[in-house]
Amino acid sequence: MRKKIGIVGFRGYSGAELVSITARHPGVEPVLIEHRSDAEATPGPGQRLRTVPCTPEAFRTEGFAAVFLATPAEVSMELAPWMLDAGAKVIDLSGAFRLRTPERYRRWYKQEHTQPALLAEAAFGLPEMYRESVRGARLIANPGCYPTAATLAIAPLVECGIADRAAGIICDAKSGVSGAGRKPSLKTHFCEAAENFSAYSILEHRHVPEILMNCGLEEGELSFTAQLLPITRGILETVYFRTRLTSVDELVALYEKRYAGEPFVRIWKPPQVPDLRAVARTNFCDIGVRLDAATGRAVVIAAIDNLVKGAAGQAVQNMNLALGFPETEALL
Amino acid sequence: MRKKIGIVGFRGYSGAELVSITARHPGVEPVLIEHRSDAEATPGPGQRLRTVPCTPEAFRTEGFAAVFLATPAEVSMELAPWMLDAGAKVIDLSGAFRLRTPERYRRWYKQEHTQPALLAEAAFGLPEMYRESVRGARLIANPGCYPTAATLAIAPLVECGIADRAAGIICDAKSGVSGAGRKPSLKTHFCEAAENFSAYSILEHRHVPEILMNCGLEEGELSFTAQLLPITRGILETVYFRTRLTSVDELVALYEKRYAGEPFVRIWKPPQVPDLRAVARTNFCDIGVRLDAATGRAVVIAAIDNLVKGAAGQAVQNMNLALGFPETEALL
Amino acid sequence: MRKKIGIVGFRGYSGAELVSITARHPGVEPVLIEHRSDAEATPGPGQRLRTVPCTPEAFRTEGFAAVFLATPAEVSMELAPWMLDAGAKVIDLSGAFRLRTPERYRRWYKQEHTQPALLAEAAFGLPEMYRESVRGARLIANPGCYPTAATLAIAPLVECGIADRAAGIICDAKSGVSGAGRKPSLKTHFCEAAENFSAYSILEHRHVPEILMNCGLEEGELSFTAQLLPITRGILETVYFRTRLTSVDELVALYEKRYAGEPFVRIWKPPQVPDLRAVARTNFCDIGVRLDAATGRAVVIAAIDNLVKGAAGQAVQNMNLALGFPETEALL
Amino acid sequence: MRKKIGIVGFRGYSGAELVSITARHPGVEPVLIEHRSDAEATPGPGQRLRTVPCTPEAFRTEGFAAVFLATPAEVSMELAPWMLDAGAKVIDLSGAFRLRTPERYRRWYKQEHTQPALLAEAAFGLPEMYRESVRGARLIANPGCYPTAATLAIAPLVECGIADRAAGIICDAKSGVSGAGRKPSLKTHFCEAAENFSAYSILEHRHVPEILMNCGLEEGELSFTAQLLPITRGILETVYFRTRLTSVDELVALYEKRYAGEPFVRIWKPPQVPDLRAVARTNFCDIGVRLDAATGRAVVIAAIDNLVKGAAGQAVQNMNLALGFPETEALL
Repeated sequence: MRKKIGIVGFRGYSGAELVSITARHPGVEPVLIEHRSDAEATPGPGQRLRTVPCTPEAFRTEGFAAVFLATPAEVSMELAPWMLDAGAKVIDLSGAFRLRTPERYRRWYKQEHTQPALLAEAAFGLPEMYRESVRGARLIANPGCYPTAATLAIAPLVECGIADRAAGIICDAKSGVSGAGRKPSLKTHFCEAAENFSAYSILEHRHVPEILMNCGLEEGELSFTAQLLPITRGILETVYFRTRLTSVDELVALYEKRYAGEPFVRIWKPPQVPDLRAVARTNFCDIGVRLDAATGRAVVIAAIDNLVKGAAGQAVQNMNLALGFPETEALL
Repeated sequence: MRKKIGIVGFRGYSGAELVSITARHPGVEPVLIEHRSDAEATPGPGQRLRTVPCTPEAFRTEGFAAVFLATPAEVSMELAPWMLDAGAKVIDLSGAFRLRTPERYRRWYKQEHTQPALLAEAAFGLPEMYRESVRGARLIANPGCYPTAATLAIAPLVECGIADRAAGIICDAKSGVSGAGRKPSLKTHFCEAAENFSAYSILEHRHVPEILMNCGLEEGELSFTAQLLPITRGILETVYFRTRLTSVDELVALYEKRYAGEPFVRIWKPPQVPDLRAVARTNFCDIGVRLDAATGRAVVIAAIDNLVKGAAGQAVQNMNLALGFPETEALL
Repeated sequence: MRKKIGIVGFRGYSGAELVSITARHPGVEPVLIEHRSDAEATPGPGQRLRTVPCTPEAFRTEGFAAVFLATPAEVSMELAPWMLDAGAKVIDLSGAFRLRTPERYRRWYKQEHTQPALLAEAAFGLPEMYRESVRGARLIANPGCYPTAATLAIAPLVECGIADRAAGIICDAKSGVSGAGRKPSLKTHFCEAAENFSAYSILEHRHVPEILMNCGLEEGELSFTAQLLPITRGILETVYFRTRLTSVDELVALYEKRYAGEPFVRIWKPPQVPDLRAVARTNFCDIGVRLDAATGRAVVIAAIDNLVKGAAGQAVQNMNLALGFPETEALL
Repeated sequence: MRKKIGIVGFRGYSGAELVSITARHPGVEPVLIEHRSDAEATPGPGQRLRTVPCTPEAFRTEGFAAVFLATPAEVSMELAPWMLDAGAKVIDLSGAFRLRTPERYRRWYKQEHTQPALLAEAAFGLPEMYRESVRGARLIANPGCYPTAATLAIAPLVECGIADRAAGIICDAKSGVSGAGRKPSLKTHFCEAAENFSAYSILEHRHVPEILMNCGLEEGELSFTAQLLPITRGILETVYFRTRLTSVDELVALYEKRYAGEPFVRIWKPPQVPDLRAVARTNFCDIGVRLDAATGRAVVIAAIDNLVKGAAGQAVQNMNLALGFPETEALL
């Protein structure tokens, strides 16, 4: 029998992607949960799923095995407690439960955290780093889109001690417009974003602490800049560092070993490096590397689809782990 | 000495284009008029023009020879009377003064016209049709973007009586997103408009009565559909009709004769027809024609830049006529 | 046991889509057939399918149940005979076998047909029109992308006799760039196609005879123009006609009745009409209608994904019929 | 009297921009020079300039004051000698004369230089660095598009000794597709470039030696990666470095002082940084800076239009200097 799962925020871009992925998952029955914060509806025929109101009563009646929150952080903090109490696993796609301590949350989100106990409890939902804790968790904080690619690209360098951290690691990140959400703004207006490219949150993006935590880096060791690509979906991050390695093959081997057996990480053979088309509408994180052996300068390129491995796909990967489905179900 | 001209709504797309064109006009000194209805500012350095508040006092002090209203129709109806009283020529880019009668305005704009006398007085600012009345006018209604291309394409067919009006004339129109203005909405969100194409206001666009009036057509004789292109600027209209003409050369000759001497209308030689790149950032309306002589089916294609010939460029062309400058000044 | 199917031209856009769809089809095992005419390879990891050379020997050894030809018409005419002889069903995505007579082929393709017997034998692979003949066919001519949408939009009007054919039916068609194929040309250069829109093959597109044949129209009764959208995939066609119907509900009912039970045709409720996002990456043809009852002017809008319902998806739909799979397998 | 200037390669993207800029220059009369290597023509009406063949005879007859070579490096090496002999100043937009020594040219362009004496003689046409030598030069090597932005962003840091060169300077560069030229290729196909983003020539782009030469850096001190944006025009470069400066105001002041009086360099006030729309179709290089004072990590962002300040605009700026016109003529 299929397990019932709920989706709050199903009209936003991540939410719509959740609907589309779970609809082809043989083990679950997705139900839409209508919340006042959700985006404007799209006209026309579409997925014909059942919709229930976002109330504790309706929620208990359904008996959800899990629920996805594709909602703003404030809404997630409000909904997670009573949904957990109702016995559902909660997979939150906002930033509400990612940063582990209220201090860190206050600094980067400029507001108080209202659920510090849940913040401490939440598992960080990046299976390639924390698979076992995800499996057992009640509450899973799905990673930010930028940190997913950045962590998968940078963590192996730090783990193996081959990057010169004193010289600093640079992560120059570029994202499609869907990362900014479906709510209209001047920044996401077609005429402002098309035929344009712009940087924002330079050196101070709120996704930075996630990357530092995952990779074991100090703030001064990482320079991160986010930039807006005139495309709908996709994140590509170009990572620069200095290394004592003297052969690109060693670098490739390091990544291949680190991600051996991982179903959603693909390492490219130099000199090829991934572009965004290679990962569009997939749950893959593709990684390519280059090295100038004479000077020890190296580049790692990581590409994901921000709405799949960067959001909804990874959330389903986490659900698969938490509910005991095969990890790749509905994702390959 | 340069004549002072004012621009209200200078932050919108048409307004910004007015700023850019008038800044290179040797005969005028543009001044920005700050109105509460204007759009959000763009950061960074830019045109460094003087800005004055939108009050009758400031307006009289400046002594404007002319003023451009790149504002919503309601705002134009409110500003035009006292700006005219202050002695300025008013060139309005909204739909407020285009439709000649309050009845027509009520039907298509779903609201009452508050200045019926000015509505009756206004000249329709399409120089290729009404040059002399523009020259002498106090108040000029700059045409809609769609009607500019549609009129220039269709009027010659009706004037010469070569189109089969009973069979109907079809105008399938496509516009870039800037035609929808700079105010953010879901329709103009990058992720909704990019990699998309959609029809709207099918058979009932409020620009239709302008085309009918200009061309001398009855409502049942014209089918007009507006469609949104995933580009920033440009309008291309594909016009279909049936004709007794039996040679495409006759059709070309008809257009060449009608627009002989017109500085901003270019007729293409078959089989070439214009595309949007040919007119981008120019004040040209390019026209191309095709005819299947065996069956009398014909196609006319007209292309303009919606922000130039479809808005700001044509407004400056009208200003040139009204203030006695060479018609092409700042536009070639 | 899975049936083996071959794909020739697997690197082109339609071919790559065939690979992707058949890879998730539970009843078939796709094999790539390497032909000299195929496009340049894409770097990186990807579908890891077996590849065989395009020779009669290799072909016989495999024992294909069916083969898809995503090749130019000349290549299809060369391959189809010996592949049919080897016992495979052939589904051809080129224009080689669509036009039924050598005379028609000569007129529209400007070359001689080398396989007139096969031309006469081929079934036209539009299941919504010719389902039974597709089921029994050895050779299936997959329809052109434009004719798929045009036929589904126009045929019901002619069948029911509600369109004024004397006044003429207009089909203003717009397609994404992938319709032009993967071979580089100036027309498909990013800098020429982006921020542009252009008409081509006006009144003389080689897809016209398919539409006429399917709908039972004479050449003089249909005006068809193709236009290039600055997007990757999608076709939207805007059809104009005159009718004696006096209610849009009658028009909707007519389409709903005609396509009742069809798994891949969706009729929208007025005033909503489909856009390209609604059908992107699906095998649906979405249809919407509008009618001005006072004057009898009507508009029908049909949208498809040119690479799916307009090419590879429909080809798999045809394969499902021809090999006895459920018609929607791998397509919903 | 206007000075006659010639343009070779006028159909390519840089060449077409040269035509457009020189056509509005009051001091010159542009003449098109038809060379076999030029790109395919664009249909339709356009600039109606005189065209002459690319022969020494025709060239001498014209008596050109200057000539622009918007040609491949091999063609420039072939044309420059006899055009100089005919008394024209030569402004070359290819890489033929930028690298000063035949050894450097061989290493980065993988071919022999056929005109070493001219290579040694050529002035490097970046006026903000080498204005005086440009003024007196016969042969001017117009800089690469990437090096223009990179040099203007990085040179001040090295000149003032405030960047930690041992830690390395990173230049993450992004360019629109027109930088790849007008010749069709799979890389520039709309369907490959749109909704995509890709890196190329990682750590080994042939523009690197220009940046090193201009900035006085060693190869190991700079990591440069080029990336392809899905837009037509524009280059944005994000530069990362470590510094002992402790205030962003000091950094701004340094750039303001360095470029005081420069007509085409604009320094933005933090926290604002330039995007590509700010410089599109202008000859400006816009620069913005950010600094994390606590850790000494800094970012500089430089934006240009690759076809204007990165090619044709800068070439006209160089012509203005070499022929004694005001430096900004036709460029503001």
